[in-house]
Amino acid sequence: MGGYKCFKSILDVPGPVDLALIAVNYKLVLPALRDCVKKGVKFATVFSSGFAEAGEEGKALQEEMAKLARESGMGVCGPNCQGSVNLKESAIGGFSASLGMRPFRIGPIGYVTQSGALGYSLFSLALEAGVGFTHVASTGNEVDLHTLDFMEHILEDPDTRMIISYLEGIKDGRQFARIADRALELGKPIVTLKVGRSEVGQKAASSHTASLTGSDAVCDAFFRQKGIIRVPDIEAMIDVAALMQHIPALPEGTGLGIITTSGGGGILVADEAVDLGLDIPELDPATKEAVKKVIPEYGSALNPIDVTAQVINEAEGFMHVLEAVAKLPQIHAFVIVVTQITGEQGMQMAQDIAKMSGRIKKPITVAWTTADQLVGGQLKALSDGGVQYYKSPVRAVRAMGALMKYAAFRKEHLESVLEAREEREVVPEAAQKAVAPQAKLMRERKAAQDKARALLSSTGASLTEHQGKQLLSLYGIPVTQEEVAASEKDAVRIADGIGYPVAMKIDSPDILHKTEAGGLKLGISSAEEVPAVFGEIMQNARKYKSDAKVNGVLVQEMVRDGTEVIVGVKNDPQFGPMILFGLGGIFVEILKDVSLRVAPITRQAALDMIKDIKGFSVLAGARGRPKADIDAIADVLIKVSRLALELEDSIAELDINPLIVLPEGQGASVADALVIKR
Amino acid sequence: MGGYKCFKSILDVPGPVDLALIAVNYKLVLPALRDCVKKGVKFATVFSSGFAEAGEEGKALQEEMAKLARESGMGVCGPNCQGSVNLKESAIGGFSASLGMRPFRIGPIGYVTQSGALGYSLFSLALEAGVGFTHVASTGNEVDLHTLDFMEHILEDPDTRMIISYLEGIKDGRQFARIADRALELGKPIVTLKVGRSEVGQKAASSHTASLTGSDAVCDAFFRQKGIIRVPDIEAMIDVAALMQHIPALPEGTGLGIITTSGGGGILVADEAVDLGLDIPELDPATKEAVKKVIPEYGSALNPIDVTAQVINEAEGFMHVLEAVAKLPQIHAFVIVVTQITGEQGMQMAQDIAKMSGRIKKPITVAWTTADQLVGGQLKALSDGGVQYYKSPVRAVRAMGALMKYAAFRKEHLESVLEAREEREVVPEAAQKAVAPQAKLMRERKAAQDKARALLSSTGASLTEHQGKQLLSLYGIPVTQEEVAASEKDAVRIADGIGYPVAMKIDSPDILHKTEAGGLKLGISSAEEVPAVFGEIMQNARKYKSDAKVNGVLVQEMVRDGTEVIVGVKNDPQFGPMILFGLGGIFVEILKDVSLRVAPITRQAALDMIKDIKGFSVLAGARGRPKADIDAIADVLIKVSRLALELEDSIAELDINPLIVLPEGQGASVADALVIKR
Repeated sequence: MGGYKCFKSILDVPGPVDLALIAVNYKLVLPALRDCVKKGVKFATVFSSGFAEAGEEGKALQEEMAKLARESGMGVCGPNCQGSVNLKESAIGGFSASLGMRPFRIGPIGYVTQSGALGYSLFSLALEAGVGFTHVASTGNEVDLHTLDFMEHILEDPDTRMIISYLEGIKDGRQFARIADRALELGKPIVTLKVGRSEVGQKAASSHTASLTGSDAVCDAFFRQKGIIRVPDIEAMIDVAALMQHIPALPEGTGLGIITTSGGGGILVADEAVDLGLDIPELDPATKEAVKKVIPEYGSALNPIDVTAQVINEAEGFMHVLEAVAKLPQIHAFVIVVTQITGEQGMQMAQDIAKMSGRIKKPITVAWTTADQLVGGQLKALSDGGVQYYKSPVRAVRAMGALMKYAAFRKEHLESVLEAREEREVVPEAAQKAVAPQAKLMRERKAAQDKARALLSSTGASLTEHQGKQLLSLYGIPVTQEEVAASEKDAVRIADGIGYPVAMKIDSPDILHKTEAGGLKLGISSAEEVPAVFGEIMQNARKYKSDAKVNGVLVQEMVRDGTEVIVGVKNDPQFGPMILFGLGGIFVEILKDVSLRVAPITRQAALDMIKDIKGFSVLAGARGRPKADIDAIADVLIKVSRLALELEDSIAELDINPLIVLPEGQGASVADALVIKR
Repeated sequence: MGGYKCFKSILDVPGPVDLALIAVNYKLVLPALRDCVKKGVKFATVFSSGFAEAGEEGKALQEEMAKLARESGMGVCGPNCQGSVNLKESAIGGFSASLGMRPFRIGPIGYVTQSGALGYSLFSLALEAGVGFTHVASTGNEVDLHTLDFMEHILEDPDTRMIISYLEGIKDGRQFARIADRALELGKPIVTLKVGRSEVGQKAASSHTASLTGSDAVCDAFFRQKGIIRVPDIEAMIDVAALMQHIPALPEGTGLGIITTSGGGGILVADEAVDLGLDIPELDPATKEAVKKVIPEYGSALNPIDVTAQVINEAEGFMHVLEAVAKLPQIHAFVIVVTQITGEQGMQMAQDIAKMSGRIKKPITVAWTTADQLVGGQLKALSDGGVQYYKSPVRAVRAMGALMKYAAFRKEHLESVLEAREEREVVPEAAQKAVAPQAKLMRERKAAQDKARALLSSTGASLTEHQGKQLLSLYGIPVTQEEVAASEKDAVRIADGIGYPVAMKIDSPDILHKTEAGGLKLGISSAEEVPAVFGEIMQNARKYKSDAKVNGVLVQEMVRDGTEVIVGVKNDPQFGPMILFGLGGIFVEILKDVSLRVAPITRQAALDMIKDIKGFSVLAGARGRPKADIDAIADVLIKVSRLALELEDSIAELDINPLIVLPEGQGASVADALVIKR
């Protein structure tokens, strides 16, 4: 066929087979796969559809396929996919009209997609926009190999500088976390178009690929935590990829220089840059003077720098501006807006920008807001000179901004990881003596974990408040000073030791709702009151639940003048333990103002999740209040994340509500905690 | 020159001159304008720059120009502008490379821009995207005629169906309000790219055109209130204009039908539609069955409807789906996503969509996510068939969504205006007897206004709480039951009349901070307590400020079990009185959670501004609370807006804090109010 020799069965093919592409009626797929196994084929890609996406019969067939893959060890991609392409080696293992695109450009972008049709159409648009690829992989129903497997593989390809991805569901959150960490290490941004943000979208996604889509809030938190660039559209994904391809290296921070030939263009970019969280540093006086010399009086030497259309009369002036500003350490990248510069002057400008782009070491992109009919040649000169341009100033700054924020995030992330590693690194036994402090820390942690396990096995399905706090204490998390009193006398002794006022609470594994049971009294201000309160709480408890096992009454320090926050742990089916943070009261109840991260968290992630909440200004010292001890909260979050991960098999849910945070430098303290076992 | 006869001075030109275009050195502009006045020229457009944007000399010259325009009555556009074009009459009064674009397309879009360079470059991009125009006007420094003047004029042009605008500042908020109301009446959407959202952007804008940019929050509130479509980018503006040009009429609501050839495309659109606040109604069972018959088993008959790529094998099926769904009254418009349908089947599909677009009466747009290289001809067939397409599904739904939301807003707005008009319309005297109730209402309102003016002229610079409430009462705004007591006996009598508990507050024009002065006591629960509290408050007041004029003690009803909200009036330099609404406490203090509208407000605007705040769920009945009386709040907002407008010349600021809102049907009551006079 087409000059190639055909065989009736793969078993007839001479020599070894690396990859089989299967495109037969769905009923013939399993026999074909079995032949592949017999032949010793390493990988098979099944294009055929008619499986899990098509109904009960297909679902059953797909399960058999999964079993075959598992038992044989042959990697199976698909079914219902459009396969993969390795552009570097011209190995085409997919089908799509897009594979007929010319030029079929090799470049630094790796690409994985769960959708075949949308995925390959995006590929065609990207090629048309000038993006070049190393690999493309479409995975369809993901019976065996899935998107993350391909992502993991492509990431290690030395020619791949960025991975873009279209995702409907995340098959294995922990694998994605490993990949994301590795990608940060390598400095290769992952860009994702993850759909299913809305309920309607999720429903459509799960009916589409029958995949477990998971909670979008969790995915979004994960993307933030790992510096994954989330885009809302195929166009935005192509924009970022195209820019990455054109710049020699990532920008080194979030300081943006804006140069424009028309005031309006600069303002547009500035507005969007501020929304994105970029900085637009003002120029220092010397640079401002240098800029002023070469632009007309009605231009602007602020940032945005408005060189005005007069720049066409003095091409050198524009280059001087760019060169002068590029020297400033607080400027990390440029967006240049060119509006209506056409003809020869436009060509001069395009060539100058291309030249400067090679000379200054900071990434540049251009928004040239004029129709192709007027500046087609000029735009080609920019492209040929290796400068990525857009027609829209907003798209230009969004693409550059995504890379700037990625780079700034990565820097902080790597520092945070390094810091954590220095503290925690497991030390080879032989070297243990030389590094006694670390070894001691590791031993202590192991001991704490053992104690925690012992504690957990001694309790009922949920821990009492006091037990919960004991568990937290084992991980170094500060809790209120407290003790369980078995008698009135005992209670007085404990309260005297703590100092007044104290809180008193029933301590019973069978009474979870202490207030409802009349088992909670706050603000007991002297030893005289203690015995009566003790009696009342015990009596209320008996009335509330006569058969409750009662350990006594918990006598507890009252922490005052702090801000109440909540810290929680939830287990996500894809990502495992997630840490939750929020302010108490209406912030959580009305505004659902919480932030999430996947355990374990770095110090950076802890600080980010504190700052992520809308009510952060409450902690930062709004309304004349003192600034709260944010480091102490971060410390609790990190320790809770370690606890959640180490005890993942035993703990279903953990809620610290409230953690009382004192003013800066004074710490925080767990005032109540609920731990539910698995 | 160029075959045209030239004259040394305009005075030498024979016959009348409608429009003079002035493009001489800035020093020669004023003499030229004076000649124009002498010649009796109606309008002059000054292209020349070197005026307010260029420094002190230019600023002085511009002021002279303003004076000349004012005194002569000749309309002057510019300086520092690129002029205007009437495409319908081929009257070119501007200069720009964009005027060389071909085809120079006449269409239904009017366009005004404050920026010449960015503005005309946007014009070239729009022409290239297939948009056609009636008029383009660029206004530069706006010494006399400004953007809104042109907008007002173009709006009445019968061929103009939409106005798009690039704005840096709004010269006259009230004029814009009139234009916006008229545009809503006519059903001609106004689209605006208003820059200067950020502080950096605002600074750049004001340094650029030296125009008063005003508060972006106020502008944004105004846009919401008037259904003005605000876009973030030139591309989004072109997208909406292109769609408006292609659809025969606006969609009639926010119900979106999504049809896709690939699951992913539908999900992308659905996610964005939900973010935009559109509805994605499910199909009814009968339609679902009809759809199921013509799509494969692995397709989806939900909405999004996934017809799958199999649609290429049965072109009729696709048309059936579209026709069946178009019949549903809850679906008002369609976004169709086509991914990789190429070749003949793609052409068939494009032609079918174009055909159906003519047949069904609901607007359709298409996102065809494939490179031109593969589907250029198909896209041309769509365009030729009058269907607007995009490459990006998100851009498609954003454009359609903007029009859907505009149309839904307009419908509610017109109803709300009609309702207000029925109630308020000033009735011609002759007909007054026949419409006695309205006439009586108008008389009563006039009487209330007179009383309010009398009250205001009798007070000091700020009104006491009691005076403020009297003022509010005159406008029918419910306030707490209260009376000023001059003696202990008086106080007891009043408190008895109100019923306990009561609040007691010092009543003095010289004591604004009652709490600080010890002049406020709440929860006085019996007649026995009243005399002592009276004495204490009076004594505290004397201690606090010995020379304060004291009217006595205000005895006041305590309103309980309500939710506290705030209602305020601020005067904006551009828009006049603005009404402000928010929840009390941290919502305003920490989260700055307030909404704004320009007075007067319709009932719709009042309800919108209540729903706009983030904490709206508190009023809607979150945390198991009863739903608050939202109609009562709306009523207060409407009345406050009338008061603010009628007494605009006398009132600088008004703050109702709190308005206590009771559960649904039980009303609201002003518990404290501060009125500061101008």
